[in-house]
Amino acid sequence: MSDHPFYPRDLVLEGYVPVTWSIQAIFAAFGAVVAAVVAVVWLLSGRCKVTAVERWIMCWWAVTGLIHLLLEGYFSLNPRFYQYMSKDFFTDVWKEYSMGDSRYAARDAFVVSMESVTAFVEGPGSLVALYAIATKASYREPLQLAVSLGQLYGDVLYFATCFLEGFVHAAPGAQYFWLYFVFMNSIWVVIPGLIFVRSWRRMCLHTRAADDHLKAA
Amino acid sequence: MSDHPFYPRDLVLEGYVPVTWSIQAIFAAFGAVVAAVVAVVWLLSGRCKVTAVERWIMCWWAVTGLIHLLLEGYFSLNPRFYQYMSKDFFTDVWKEYSMGDSRYAARDAFVVSMESVTAFVEGPGSLVALYAIATKASYREPLQLAVSLGQLYGDVLYFATCFLEGFVHAAPGAQYFWLYFVFMNSIWVVIPGLIFVRSWRRMCLHTRAADDHLKAA
Repeated sequence: MSDHPFYPRDLVLEGYVPVTWSIQAIFAAFGAVVAAVVAVVWLLSGRCKVTAVERWIMCWWAVTGLIHLLLEGYFSLNPRFYQYMSKDFFTDVWKEYSMGDSRYAARDAFVVSMESVTAFVEGPGSLVALYAIATKASYREPLQLAVSLGQLYGDVLYFATCFLEGFVHAAPGAQYFWLYFVFMNSIWVVIPGLIFVRSWRRMCLHTRAADDHLKAA
Repeated sequence: MSDHPFYPRDLVLEGYVPVTWSIQAIFAAFGAVVAAVVAVVWLLSGRCKVTAVERWIMCWWAVTGLIHLLLEGYFSLNPRFYQYMSKDFFTDVWKEYSMGDSRYAARDAFVVSMESVTAFVEGPGSLVALYAIATKASYREPLQLAVSLGQLYGDVLYFATCFLEGFVHAAPGAQYFWLYFVFMNSIWVVIPGLIFVRSWRRMCLHTRAADDHLKAA
């Protein structure tokens, strides 16, 4: 008999300490922090010479950067989170998410590698992207393209490995499949996909302008 | 007892058919094809208005694109290659490489996902990059940056998962560690890394020129 709630049921994990936050409380706290970050970045970005679309993109980089650095960074650095007695938010987020994908608790090599790159490369990269838009830095387009592609590729591999492994790491239930697996991960396909296309197009325009300028000179 | 030569020795794989090409023959054939592709692309690229550095980069895109599409595409589409009786090059390359990493024969979900993206996204992307340089297409820099970053990220995850799993999938021997794991995979860190930096810098220059142009206007 397993002393943990994760799937597959024959997964061996010693010393699981049950989750204390309800799923409603986790989403409420998460939603409140995201709303606060968006509000602060939206207000501050009003002082920059940027379009409304760019202000929304700045909000995205702030939110996704903080999620990468704090939440995914916590996961990366705490291999035994499922044994923790502490009732803090970070521990319980990962205990809860592991219901949808036990590879997080079981320290699957791909999940740990991908999450560590996401936390410590794409996390800082997202915050630098926010700064780059605000200051109109010349590297703003390649940086946004690179971080978005990293998010997209990591997520594609995440979906593909779950599929190839036959979803054996998810507990049964629509909540785990549709809310955790499909919905939450889709966010990091759709938004990075849109930003990737936007940065790609802008870089093509800039390159064409540079080529024309060279031809004319 | 295992009836296959792969590690770890308790890996269960039925119906292994031994490799027929020697490692020397594999490298000689591979080297000859790479040399031929480089020679053809180098000669043909002389007709394009490109620099010598760009001609070398075109050779790289041809070689890496064909490796992705043909070799890695073959792996992606042939889950049971280690059971094949055929003595063709492609089968034996993967039987041999699986000595250095049995996850290829065992159809590890991460390896299959990463190799499939490499084969069918980065493979065609590499050949389009070759065409884009030859024709000075406006998307040549973001495309090269994106394909290089994909190669780089896939390889970083490859190195990281091998490390986290303690190299249990490699047969003992310096050849497997230094030649297969370190040397061969390093190529796809070093060259994509250089091209990534090159495209990044060029895009920054183009963006700065576009910004200056807008300011002056």
